[in-house]
Amino acid sequence: MRPSGRQADELRPVTIERHYTMHAEGSVLIACGNTRVLCTASVEERVPPWLRGKGSGWITAEYGMLPRATGTRNMREASRGKQGGRTLEIQRLIGRSLRSVIDLQALGERTVTLDCDVLQADGGTRTASITGAYVALVDAMDGLFDAGKVKRSPVHGHVAAVSVGMLGSEAVLDLDYAEDSSADTDLNVVMNDGGGFIEVQGTAEGHAFRRDELDAMLALAEKGISELIAIQEAALNGA
Amino acid sequence: MRPSGRQADELRPVTIERHYTMHAEGSVLIACGNTRVLCTASVEERVPPWLRGKGSGWITAEYGMLPRATGTRNMREASRGKQGGRTLEIQRLIGRSLRSVIDLQALGERTVTLDCDVLQADGGTRTASITGAYVALVDAMDGLFDAGKVKRSPVHGHVAAVSVGMLGSEAVLDLDYAEDSSADTDLNVVMNDGGGFIEVQGTAEGHAFRRDELDAMLALAEKGISELIAIQEAALNGA
Amino acid sequence: MRPSGRQADELRPVTIERHYTMHAEGSVLIACGNTRVLCTASVEERVPPWLRGKGSGWITAEYGMLPRATGTRNMREASRGKQGGRTLEIQRLIGRSLRSVIDLQALGERTVTLDCDVLQADGGTRTASITGAYVALVDAMDGLFDAGKVKRSPVHGHVAAVSVGMLGSEAVLDLDYAEDSSADTDLNVVMNDGGGFIEVQGTAEGHAFRRDELDAMLALAEKGISELIAIQEAALNGA
Amino acid sequence: MRPSGRQADELRPVTIERHYTMHAEGSVLIACGNTRVLCTASVEERVPPWLRGKGSGWITAEYGMLPRATGTRNMREASRGKQGGRTLEIQRLIGRSLRSVIDLQALGERTVTLDCDVLQADGGTRTASITGAYVALVDAMDGLFDAGKVKRSPVHGHVAAVSVGMLGSEAVLDLDYAEDSSADTDLNVVMNDGGGFIEVQGTAEGHAFRRDELDAMLALAEKGISELIAIQEAALNGA
Amino acid sequence: MRPSGRQADELRPVTIERHYTMHAEGSVLIACGNTRVLCTASVEERVPPWLRGKGSGWITAEYGMLPRATGTRNMREASRGKQGGRTLEIQRLIGRSLRSVIDLQALGERTVTLDCDVLQADGGTRTASITGAYVALVDAMDGLFDAGKVKRSPVHGHVAAVSVGMLGSEAVLDLDYAEDSSADTDLNVVMNDGGGFIEVQGTAEGHAFRRDELDAMLALAEKGISELIAIQEAALNGA
Amino acid sequence: MRPSGRQADELRPVTIERHYTMHAEGSVLIACGNTRVLCTASVEERVPPWLRGKGSGWITAEYGMLPRATGTRNMREASRGKQGGRTLEIQRLIGRSLRSVIDLQALGERTVTLDCDVLQADGGTRTASITGAYVALVDAMDGLFDAGKVKRSPVHGHVAAVSVGMLGSEAVLDLDYAEDSSADTDLNVVMNDGGGFIEVQGTAEGHAFRRDELDAMLALAEKGISELIAIQEAALNGA
Repeated sequence: MRPSGRQADELRPVTIERHYTMHAEGSVLIACGNTRVLCTASVEERVPPWLRGKGSGWITAEYGMLPRATGTRNMREASRGKQGGRTLEIQRLIGRSLRSVIDLQALGERTVTLDCDVLQADGGTRTASITGAYVALVDAMDGLFDAGKVKRSPVHGHVAAVSVGMLGSEAVLDLDYAEDSSADTDLNVVMNDGGGFIEVQGTAEGHAFRRDELDAMLALAEKGISELIAIQEAALNGA
Repeated sequence: MRPSGRQADELRPVTIERHYTMHAEGSVLIACGNTRVLCTASVEERVPPWLRGKGSGWITAEYGMLPRATGTRNMREASRGKQGGRTLEIQRLIGRSLRSVIDLQALGERTVTLDCDVLQADGGTRTASITGAYVALVDAMDGLFDAGKVKRSPVHGHVAAVSVGMLGSEAVLDLDYAEDSSADTDLNVVMNDGGGFIEVQGTAEGHAFRRDELDAMLALAEKGISELIAIQEAALNGA
Repeated sequence: MRPSGRQADELRPVTIERHYTMHAEGSVLIACGNTRVLCTASVEERVPPWLRGKGSGWITAEYGMLPRATGTRNMREASRGKQGGRTLEIQRLIGRSLRSVIDLQALGERTVTLDCDVLQADGGTRTASITGAYVALVDAMDGLFDAGKVKRSPVHGHVAAVSVGMLGSEAVLDLDYAEDSSADTDLNVVMNDGGGFIEVQGTAEGHAFRRDELDAMLALAEKGISELIAIQEAALNGA
Repeated sequence: MRPSGRQADELRPVTIERHYTMHAEGSVLIACGNTRVLCTASVEERVPPWLRGKGSGWITAEYGMLPRATGTRNMREASRGKQGGRTLEIQRLIGRSLRSVIDLQALGERTVTLDCDVLQADGGTRTASITGAYVALVDAMDGLFDAGKVKRSPVHGHVAAVSVGMLGSEAVLDLDYAEDSSADTDLNVVMNDGGGFIEVQGTAEGHAFRRDELDAMLALAEKGISELIAIQEAALNGA
Repeated sequence: MRPSGRQADELRPVTIERHYTMHAEGSVLIACGNTRVLCTASVEERVPPWLRGKGSGWITAEYGMLPRATGTRNMREASRGKQGGRTLEIQRLIGRSLRSVIDLQALGERTVTLDCDVLQADGGTRTASITGAYVALVDAMDGLFDAGKVKRSPVHGHVAAVSVGMLGSEAVLDLDYAEDSSADTDLNVVMNDGGGFIEVQGTAEGHAFRRDELDAMLALAEKGISELIAIQEAALNGA
Repeated sequence: MRPSGRQADELRPVTIERHYTMHAEGSVLIACGNTRVLCTASVEERVPPWLRGKGSGWITAEYGMLPRATGTRNMREASRGKQGGRTLEIQRLIGRSLRSVIDLQALGERTVTLDCDVLQADGGTRTASITGAYVALVDAMDGLFDAGKVKRSPVHGHVAAVSVGMLGSEAVLDLDYAEDSSADTDLNVVMNDGGGFIEVQGTAEGHAFRRDELDAMLALAEKGISELIAIQEAALNGA
């Protein structure tokens, strides 16, 4: 049995609260168990220099963790003067994942920035960021459509993400921090609603993982992501 | 009449939610109208180099604003590579204010860092940070006492803060963003529960302010702060 | 009696030497007792991006302290790679203070940068910077008028600054470094020649200050600033 | 047929030149087709602060690309003042991969830094870095053993890496730059000589990839890595 | 006799390998004894802001040393976040030296960046960089001419560089690292093929050097540079 | 005739004012014509990490230019976040030059920092810095001796510096800014009172310089420096 007492294929409770803050075009607080991430989507009427005049928009992401989102305080990246490698890696991942479901031509010459700020961390912050940011992005895109600024929604699919891992010889879904610390492998999976993979990032923390272990983890991820997509849909239909 | 429809001497509704996040020794979400700041107090068993071996503790503060806490997105300070002058100025103010009610000897060789992160901004973020951080600090100090790490609470008084300003010829209490933008003077006042001033920072935005205007603003600040201290006490007694 | 032997309401000797260096449009060495600040005003025919094409000018300030202006050597901010919070706070204060007496429309699309560099520090460097920078600014503005570049002088008033504080129970004017170190309160006041306040920044260093103490300090500041304005006028009429 | 004219499961020619430079404890120039990376292993008799006194060593990696290793010149990261997100991501990957085959206790309180500097880039620089750095690391570890500084070699296995991708509907091995630019998916795989996975990092560049495509790519990677390990062994036995 | 066993006026063996990497317009690996520097010339169709629209081009240089080019590992400047004073000094020297033989008008509005990266260091890296970069620059300029982009070659002379020094009372040519460490004086000389001096940079490491010692060193430098220019010519004619 | 109207071998008027500021152990304002540099020597009872416990002291230098020391305002290096290449190059030169006349063993485990800050620039700021810093250093060393902290003065000679150049075909001494801008060669020379060379740094700005031109410039430098040393001695004997 896993430390959390959950079944091997059981997600933590997920809640998605839309319109969490008032200024952003999309604003979502996603909770996956004790992990809580505020995801905002900000639309700006400009594009990066290398896209100017090409009729295409851009989606980018930034990730941050409040200094005391974690068990011991982390130094604030703003006061340290730079973002660490982990932060840069995560925000690149979020940006790639969200771009995979957006038609940048339909967006037009606009930039959408997805800010994912972790208020409380308990494992899985990068995957919660992707799942939550998707809902914030849809809200922002719907706002553009309602305002007549785009002719059709630039969103052409769902995207969600989850982590899976090996706890000893068992593959488990959606690791919390305690589980992640003792897992031998950590695999983050990003998928769309067509069952296609957007990103697969697996790291052997302890011993290397075998092909059959990878297969078992991928199967769990597919199951978890289809549940997450249903939760996203319910949230989007709910308000 | 002021834009917000409030009386000249009327605070915005204030709520203080303790234990907002789970890891920090003190964690408070303070809402002053639409301004919402997450204030955490983190206790660490070490002091800055210049205090080592002197038996005294230290209180410091950091301030941040999420990129989309405001009407238009602000560049993230972590990605810009440095904290701006406004941020540094505010976090120095918060630190000084909180140190004024702490007995650093009683704290012992520990550092308490108050992180004030603005989730949503609508004016008065620095004063809300001080008022909220005080409650987080008390919770953290009570925790030290309960754990037997200090013999008496290092807290020897209340501190709270509010902004006042001149809207045309009228002094008004607790400006929101719209009011602040049109005010001629912005005065931030930090006081303790003995009616003493900790900080007075007034800036003429439009025309210079006269001595009688300063007097009227100070009187409003005294009234507002006594109300805020009552709200702090209620929150501390409530849970 | 105060450490300096001065009366409670007595300024240190002030000298203002204009045309101190040869390149700047305005160049003033101000000495307030042993505090010596070189203030230069540089006029450039451009404005920051956010003011372009609006017909308005800009006044900004930078503050620095030579590494050995003080009793022990301070690390050079240029080699540390950033300006500290105190520096940023002071230069923002200087900029706001000087902008309060300038008609930015009359200035036209120009930027005036006031560089205040402390050659020797003995307390009150920020207030000396404001008082000295005003004279450098007037010289630069007169130069623009004499050259026919502006139709009327953009300067519409005097501005000067002084510090006051509480030494025990006595309010005293114009603290030097030794007095400042033992004062319970430090209050910096910026006023114009109409008796209006531009900035009031008071900090309780030891115990909080009472309202009657604040009143006593403000009265001293008013007296000191009127004397400083007379010294500025004498300097401007003298050469 | 693929642009390079190679078979779908065909590696580019690989050469590994040991002792390429004279100062480093291990120094390898690896060429994978036109991609050339200089990998050095530097042994230092100290560990990071968080490992001091624990009897354990550390393996870390740094990655760089000469400004003109690529078709158009890239700005030098040293002159830009920071390493980009891609660089940090890659050097974290290299470090994790190499640590997976080292017994850090057997290494003792030493740090080995693997510097992977790309002299010429034509796709696959991160996987070539891992494959080459392994050989440099073995040379450095053998040097420690020969000098009597460690009782047994800290190396307990082989590690090598390769990229695979989808060119249209076909899975292909070891993409060069031209192929990588037109591939729909890019998957980097790091494995050991026991057939275990150390890292799997797949990104959908165009459309999402299906599970059967992932399976095909993983099979190619297994084949390629076993060939690379044979090339490593030949190089290590050769001199 | 000098440590290296060479005659006082004897250069180390010099080899110049052109077309060392495939992307750059000019690419040279120069070896002076054990010192090996990769010099690339990159041509870009733009100039720095201060040259725009003036019909003139620009030549600039950057210098770097791989972390383990030296006996002990040096921290990577990219990870330290800035280039050191020595690096900046050397790249300014290389840039000035190469500009001395180029007609910037004939170059047109283009920038040539000379990247000199030290793969292996054994003294004299800055002078080897100049000598090698010259050949890379000629190759790049010939490429522009062959492509019809310039009407005549912008190169109007040769430039090469060498170090000389005082070993005890004897002047010696082309110091390697061991010699440089024990030399009393280190003099770097840059000359053109007309026998004119471009740069002379001499530093007394131990005792000051006398005028007659300076004369002896300059004579050796003249001899060495004429040999280096012959080697450059042979390399340029050879391929 | 040269632009300044001076003879080819004529220095600008030089004044050296000791004890210019009150805090530093040595404080000198040197004026060479219109160039004015404030040189302070600060003694600290510690050495850099690499010298700890070796019984030896250290001499280092920092150089800065006030933003409006020049005809047009230069951006402040502290606000730009780094010192430029020219600054680093100059402060390394000043440090090397002063170390050449100091017995670091006699100094003991102390660091002397020479801060050279240019208040007004008109050519020759680096050479004026060296000449002035020497006097500040002697004052600081005499202070150590008078306080009984060193047994003998660590100063074992004089050092001074001057620039020379070629104006057309004529060698001239001590170029001011206007002359420097039109000179073909700029040569900075640092010498001691034994007639030995400490540094020789010559750069061809226009055409390369011939050996006989170099000889003529060196002769002028020798003459100028012997005059500067006499001025240093007079200043040191004068107060």
